[in-house]
Amino acid sequence: MSFLDQVEKLRSERGTSLCVGLDPDLDRLPEHVPRSPEGVYRFLAEIIEATGDLACAYKPNLAFYGALGIEGFSILGRVIRLAKEEAPVILDGKFGDIGNTARSYAEMAFDTLLSDAVTLSPYLGADSIVPFIDRRDAFAFILGITSNDGSADVQQKKLDDGNLLFESLAQRFEERFPQENWGWVAGATKLGELEALREKSPDRLLLIPGVGAQGGDLAGAITASLSSSGKPMALINASRSILYASSGRDYKETSRDAAMALVREMRAATL
Amino acid sequence: MSFLDQVEKLRSERGTSLCVGLDPDLDRLPEHVPRSPEGVYRFLAEIIEATGDLACAYKPNLAFYGALGIEGFSILGRVIRLAKEEAPVILDGKFGDIGNTARSYAEMAFDTLLSDAVTLSPYLGADSIVPFIDRRDAFAFILGITSNDGSADVQQKKLDDGNLLFESLAQRFEERFPQENWGWVAGATKLGELEALREKSPDRLLLIPGVGAQGGDLAGAITASLSSSGKPMALINASRSILYASSGRDYKETSRDAAMALVREMRAATL
Repeated sequence: MSFLDQVEKLRSERGTSLCVGLDPDLDRLPEHVPRSPEGVYRFLAEIIEATGDLACAYKPNLAFYGALGIEGFSILGRVIRLAKEEAPVILDGKFGDIGNTARSYAEMAFDTLLSDAVTLSPYLGADSIVPFIDRRDAFAFILGITSNDGSADVQQKKLDDGNLLFESLAQRFEERFPQENWGWVAGATKLGELEALREKSPDRLLLIPGVGAQGGDLAGAITASLSSSGKPMALINASRSILYASSGRDYKETSRDAAMALVREMRAATL
Repeated sequence: MSFLDQVEKLRSERGTSLCVGLDPDLDRLPEHVPRSPEGVYRFLAEIIEATGDLACAYKPNLAFYGALGIEGFSILGRVIRLAKEEAPVILDGKFGDIGNTARSYAEMAFDTLLSDAVTLSPYLGADSIVPFIDRRDAFAFILGITSNDGSADVQQKKLDDGNLLFESLAQRFEERFPQENWGWVAGATKLGELEALREKSPDRLLLIPGVGAQGGDLAGAITASLSSSGKPMALINASRSILYASSGRDYKETSRDAAMALVREMRAATL
């Protein structure tokens, strides 16, 4: 089953759009979790167990595993295998390279690490996207508009044709890639831009970070992300607000409560 | 010693600007090299030995190691340790993320893998650069203009102020980051754009891929990359043309010959 079909099935079964970011930050782990690769693995296994029936996807970010040391990469592989039992996995690597290098990243993401989807950074343009969406069952989320201040430096530059750069990019990629297996990353802290992106790409699945710890507007993001037929076509990602909901021994229950609270907010917003 | 000082020292001692890309592609390895992580390691160790007195830097690309399987990441760590005995190492990951994620990538690159420099992708803007150049002894090469067709989709977009996007970005980053420890990636196949980038950033160290297998103009790139005082301020990268110079048992000698031929061309161009 393709990534898109898996997400759609889970969304309708579970009534949520939740993506749980699996980003282990040693400085923020609950107090009694051992600061070791194995400690991190067990912590994330608990989080996956606590959220398994609420998530439509999991999203580990490569950086946090690489920072654990060489062993971190095998922990990443194990975390992905475990998470996949509950929901498909997006490897957040913001990959962006060309030719045989991009093909090697696709092999790393889909064959070595067994993830179902990736995030991509489009600074190198269309040819950096091809090797990923050539994998028909896989899926690629391309950075469109991000939630940080620096999004002004490239993404929101005004072009001589009146479009902002991310709008021009959306138009270009919609024309160039009629395939179904890609969508956009669009931050919940930038609602106006999210709406502008949705206008250019009315039916793509969006991956929306920036709610939770970053304070983006969840209900607003859900409304802005509805497809042309009014269907929810977004995964709403939360990482820190779920993983680090408690620093105590009750973290597993508290993380579930935090995820459940987000799910309730999502359901209320889509009524 | 900082990355910049190390490169400067090697350049003046060895009379070259050569950066050797360590990108192991299983489909292109010489015939009798075992297609295994250990086989790859031994092959790259031979390449490093063959080019050790000619290189000012080595540049492994993360993708090729990740594609080897989980063990590939420990091979990458070992290759970097070995290459560092000859010249500083640039981890080519085209990283681009924000906040604590970017800090984790810096830890992965500099603390886990012990590289001396990285490549960065600037789609997320200035805040994605900070955590890397905050490491004062390390160095960051930011993608400016790349050698592929897709560079038209983002990098070469014309802005409403008349600048191309990469020119506007160069101006912004020069203002924002007076620090010495960053430079640009600029493809040798795009000489006009390389010149335009050099105009905005007259004294930054450039990393120039695209000669060798990609057919860029070596002499033209060297001339276009001279600093405001006429000093060579570029590393010229070649990967495939050196690594895969021969598919037979003579690959070590042939790779050295290919590297030496490039070095001779560089010396002729800087006379």
